Amino acid sequence: MSEEIIEDLINLFSKIPSLGPRSARRAVLHLLKNKDNLMTPLLGVLQETIKNVKECENCGNFCTNKRCLICEDPTRQKATICVVESIADLWAIEKSEVYNGHYHVLGGTLSAIEGRGPENLKLDKLENKIKRDRIEEVIIATNSTLEGQTTAHYIFETLSNFDNLKVSKLTQGVPIGSELDYIDDGTLGIAFKTRRLF
Amino acid sequence: MSEEIIEDLINLFSKIPSLGPRSARRAVLHLLKNKDNLMTPLLGVLQETIKNVKECENCGNFCTNKRCLICEDPTRQKATICVVESIADLWAIEKSEVYNGHYHVLGGTLSAIEGRGPENLKLDKLENKIKRDRIEEVIIATNSTLEGQTTAHYIFETLSNFDNLKVSKLTQGVPIGSELDYIDDGTLGIAFKTRRLF
Repeated sequence: MSEEIIEDLINLFSKIPSLGPRSARRAVLHLLKNKDNLMTPLLGVLQETIKNVKECENCGNFCTNKRCLICEDPTRQKATICVVESIADLWAIEKSEVYNGHYHVLGGTLSAIEGRGPENLKLDKLENKIKRDRIEEVIIATNSTLEGQTTAHYIFETLSNFDNLKVSKLTQGVPIGSELDYIDDGTLGIAFKTRRLF
Repeated sequence: MSEEIIEDLINLFSKIPSLGPRSARRAVLHLLKNKDNLMTPLLGVLQETIKNVKECENCGNFCTNKRCLICEDPTRQKATICVVESIADLWAIEKSEVYNGHYHVLGGTLSAIEGRGPENLKLDKLENKIKRDRIEEVIIATNSTLEGQTTAHYIFETLSNFDNLKVSKLTQGVPIGSELDYIDDGTLGIAFKTRRLF
């Protein structure tokens, strides 16, 4: 139907999340129509990214140097590490601007189905960091899913060997702006059980 | 929050239709996670596309040679030209596999608001093609919008100088699979007025 190279491009774009085959076609058409002010800059930035962006050797975030901007930032609290499943979660926490410490990106959860065991969580690296940087608190911020919570428990057990290390986790409860009618029973149950005085 | 180069990439991706700032972020994250099997191939194909894809000198479709695959295809009817507003429309018609002739891409419609006059429609090129290739029928397949239909009328007037040239347009009516309840009055009106015997 159209040139093979264009079909290749559509095919690659359709592998990007939130782009299906139809919207990938639209995206490619838009790029072709905006060759100079969008497609060429995109090429340049992609090239740079592939060349320069790698994993931060300290926390697992993306970076262009050895360590990421967060690890290098002297204004951030050095004694706290927040453990997250993925860089997406790290970005989400950064966007909320509620946290000013360091991170440890697990790169996944424990998953019997997908065959991911404790050895995949880079926990030895986390333990080394705790010793080396004299960490005072580890906040386990894995997702509030079954796998996320199982992983959280496993990490908590692993870290229980450390004396004087505070290990905390995010509070579960009713999300702000939500209607109780739409919230699952588990969340409501936890919100009731852990209710606090006004 | 993260490296400037990554923010640049997210920024460029968010300019692609059907990707907002949030999904652009997800897209970039996915690309970074799949550097070897998605990001690098994408770079290569983009590079090729920028270098090789241009406008077909005959019809306005995209091509990698002087003329596009449709114009070069000897199995297609040479005596029919379908006039469309954009390459997106051409692709849509090609996908439906209902048409086997050639195309003329206008690159837009007449639009007083956007200051596009008849000189932007490449109609002289269309007229030359009609003479040169001994075209027998021109199907005007502009969109069924006010601007599309105004443009269709203008082209029809322009082509009325040609003797023995059939100028046709797509039938307007009730789309297949639609419910009458959801169809606008104009479409219903046309479908009633142009009703046919069973």
